[in-house]
Amino acid sequence: MDEREESQRPEDVAIAEERDDFPLETELDEDDRLKPDFVRDVIGLAEAGEGEAARERIGRLHPADIADLFELARSDERPMLAAVLGDMLSADVLAEMNDYVREELIDLLAPEQVAELASELDTDDAVAIIEDMEADEQQAVLEAMQPEDRAAIEDALSFPEESAGRLMQRDLVAVPEHVTVGDVIDRLREDADLTSDFWEIFVVDPMHRPVGSCQLSWILRTPRDIAISDVMRREQTLIPVDMDQEEVALRFQKYALISAAVVDKAGRLVGMITVDDIVHIIQEEAGEDILRLSGAGDGDINEPIRETYTARVRWLIANLGTALVASTIVGLFGGAIEQMVALAALMPIVAGVGGNAGTQTLAVTVRALAMNQLTDSNSWRAIWREMTIALLNGATIALVAGTATALWFANPTLGAVIGAAMIVNIFVAGVAGVAIPLLLDRLDQDPAVASSIFVTMTTDSMGFLAFLGLAVLSGLTTL
Amino acid sequence: MDEREESQRPEDVAIAEERDDFPLETELDEDDRLKPDFVRDVIGLAEAGEGEAARERIGRLHPADIADLFELARSDERPMLAAVLGDMLSADVLAEMNDYVREELIDLLAPEQVAELASELDTDDAVAIIEDMEADEQQAVLEAMQPEDRAAIEDALSFPEESAGRLMQRDLVAVPEHVTVGDVIDRLREDADLTSDFWEIFVVDPMHRPVGSCQLSWILRTPRDIAISDVMRREQTLIPVDMDQEEVALRFQKYALISAAVVDKAGRLVGMITVDDIVHIIQEEAGEDILRLSGAGDGDINEPIRETYTARVRWLIANLGTALVASTIVGLFGGAIEQMVALAALMPIVAGVGGNAGTQTLAVTVRALAMNQLTDSNSWRAIWREMTIALLNGATIALVAGTATALWFANPTLGAVIGAAMIVNIFVAGVAGVAIPLLLDRLDQDPAVASSIFVTMTTDSMGFLAFLGLAVLSGLTTL
Repeated sequence: MDEREESQRPEDVAIAEERDDFPLETELDEDDRLKPDFVRDVIGLAEAGEGEAARERIGRLHPADIADLFELARSDERPMLAAVLGDMLSADVLAEMNDYVREELIDLLAPEQVAELASELDTDDAVAIIEDMEADEQQAVLEAMQPEDRAAIEDALSFPEESAGRLMQRDLVAVPEHVTVGDVIDRLREDADLTSDFWEIFVVDPMHRPVGSCQLSWILRTPRDIAISDVMRREQTLIPVDMDQEEVALRFQKYALISAAVVDKAGRLVGMITVDDIVHIIQEEAGEDILRLSGAGDGDINEPIRETYTARVRWLIANLGTALVASTIVGLFGGAIEQMVALAALMPIVAGVGGNAGTQTLAVTVRALAMNQLTDSNSWRAIWREMTIALLNGATIALVAGTATALWFANPTLGAVIGAAMIVNIFVAGVAGVAIPLLLDRLDQDPAVASSIFVTMTTDSMGFLAFLGLAVLSGLTTL
Repeated sequence: MDEREESQRPEDVAIAEERDDFPLETELDEDDRLKPDFVRDVIGLAEAGEGEAARERIGRLHPADIADLFELARSDERPMLAAVLGDMLSADVLAEMNDYVREELIDLLAPEQVAELASELDTDDAVAIIEDMEADEQQAVLEAMQPEDRAAIEDALSFPEESAGRLMQRDLVAVPEHVTVGDVIDRLREDADLTSDFWEIFVVDPMHRPVGSCQLSWILRTPRDIAISDVMRREQTLIPVDMDQEEVALRFQKYALISAAVVDKAGRLVGMITVDDIVHIIQEEAGEDILRLSGAGDGDINEPIRETYTARVRWLIANLGTALVASTIVGLFGGAIEQMVALAALMPIVAGVGGNAGTQTLAVTVRALAMNQLTDSNSWRAIWREMTIALLNGATIALVAGTATALWFANPTLGAVIGAAMIVNIFVAGVAGVAIPLLLDRLDQDPAVASSIFVTMTTDSMGFLAFLGLAVLSGLTTL
């Protein structure tokens, strides 16, 4: 369907850049983002019915950029754009597209059209498109597919979401141990149906269990008569088919893998995962923490507003509940505040700085846990480290805030009280910021999801308790 | 130095996993992390002077796991461990190690030892080890190196930190356009000095400017007599040598690259970057946002305490300054609070929920900016979207908090006041949470660094102003 398909090369990916100049400079800015003018131009042409001109404008774009064009268009412009661009909205473009935007477009297509698009993709990309559909639509699409493609996708769908089984591709090159390098090269030249996107081949035993892997560069650098078993590396990192994609990503990252064999429970080679399918997972998983910590749900700007609202408001209501604890503590000191209203004015400082100190520790801990840097071997050391830093920070802030308050209110006792409250609160923030996520992790809960609400509750309540309590104890005010 | 070096294979990486069982199960847990018992065991053996036994225990580990062992050991145990493990602390292990831990160990070594280790690594890994050293030590190491290695590293160091020039490797395969597939294979077989870690070869013109690239699988699948120029892909993504590593990572991710040619200003091929060098950058950059938002500095648990303290306390002091704004606003309403101390008790709820709503929007915006999802094309749409969500959230929270307050204090007016304040504050939080990072981004500032302090200041101050102001306006209290 795409003119590039006729080319010799197995890939139809094309980004038209040459030599030292970047001829895409009218389309892309220096960060590889589509320029706003270009986006408006194309949409304008499409709206004006000048389909041919619009298609010509985007002709040089990479599928990832065409996908971006749809994401940057307004939701109500997308169906029109899809109609105008026609088959330039190819399977590759859909594979690169944001999930929510893709879903919108897929909803417009007939099951047969979706089936045709899915057939052109690797299984993992086809699954990504199909897995989010309603059960009945999914069924209709599968029924419209060729039996072979359909079987591969149904097989993939039989594995849990976000598992290696869904990510893997079934097209791979596996050879028995006894062949030579020459045999392998001949086979690769002869079999026209083979995939072209592979970077390693796998060597299997008669039970189809992987016994080694071989980078293509090793094959290319070895004489034809050498046995493949003398070239392959026996030690390899295998991926169990039911492994969670986050674990797969960490494994790829840790061992700097380009591709890896996926094995079933019996140890048989069932698929292959390549690093290009992993890169966006690494990105997503690393970025998810930031969103989970704030309770922002999926945090995708293309998510339907309804879903975003539900995700966030749930969190805000939980926050309302925990703020009630702090509020109750302040309520207990109502009389004390009435006598000395300056305390109320200083409360935001105690809560703000304490909360920030807690968030700092929390962010570091959640990050270290996600990167497998923090294990039972060094948990206590991490807690100890945070306590030390908290004491240093607490002492510094106490000095600054205490002195300023003493001078501002001409009341050294009040300065001492806020200083002491700061030390207590920043210390509590440090301990809570590291201990709460570690505890949640040990209880097999995601530390990024629930920690921040508990940490904020702790720092707010303890901050007010320390501050108002010390104010009473020091005789500044009475209950 | 390592017995594996004698093997046929060009790589000395080895993770001893076979078939369907994972024989490393005594060393690693299910998340590929070293088990605490194993770590204590090895350190115990090393401490007891049983070096041979300790070395045997870690014999099967991947360099990345040996690096982890050092990270999990206490700081004061690491020199002892390094002495005992000797040459098992290989160049590969150092390349995998956390920067701070590596620096500690490198400081213990003589320049000649560092030079020897660096010589064994790819230029990019050697540069990573050497670039953080003091100028005089760096000079001593460079002088101890072979002229050729030294030249490569000095060349790399001439590029800015975190640029493509530092990341790239100079070992690559480049062939002229006129050769055939057979010529390429013969050359690869003959030249023993060639690197083995490559996934694509580059085709260059007489000026050594890249004109195309060719996946190894294409070469393997093509008859010997075909010209390489008929196999290669002309369209390719080139990386300018001075490009920032974050841009390089985004480009790799966007176009799903495995490797890419690096070119100088004249468009000449000067190096190659492979995806395995990029994966950890993607991880780091994606995770950095979370740390920057909270002002936790580098946020590495191995960072010296002094540096962590400096980074964090600076942020807390800034926070103290902004909290002063909120504090001043509360101070203006001193009289009002004195008359109705329930206001003080409700203040933490207004500030807490508003702050959280701001953080949610902020996290989503910072993430979308980092992923190039948010550009001038859709900024206004994003602001509009956040305003809508904020109104929905605000109305919901106002209803819940307003009703609860009205009942709790048996005061419907107070309920209405807190409800209205919530709507205002969550709306302000939504607008600030999206507009402030967008504005900073447009001013070429990192939105992750400074946004959160401004957003919190805005939500705290506006929240208190709305709440206390409405309390006065509604006649609940007077100034």
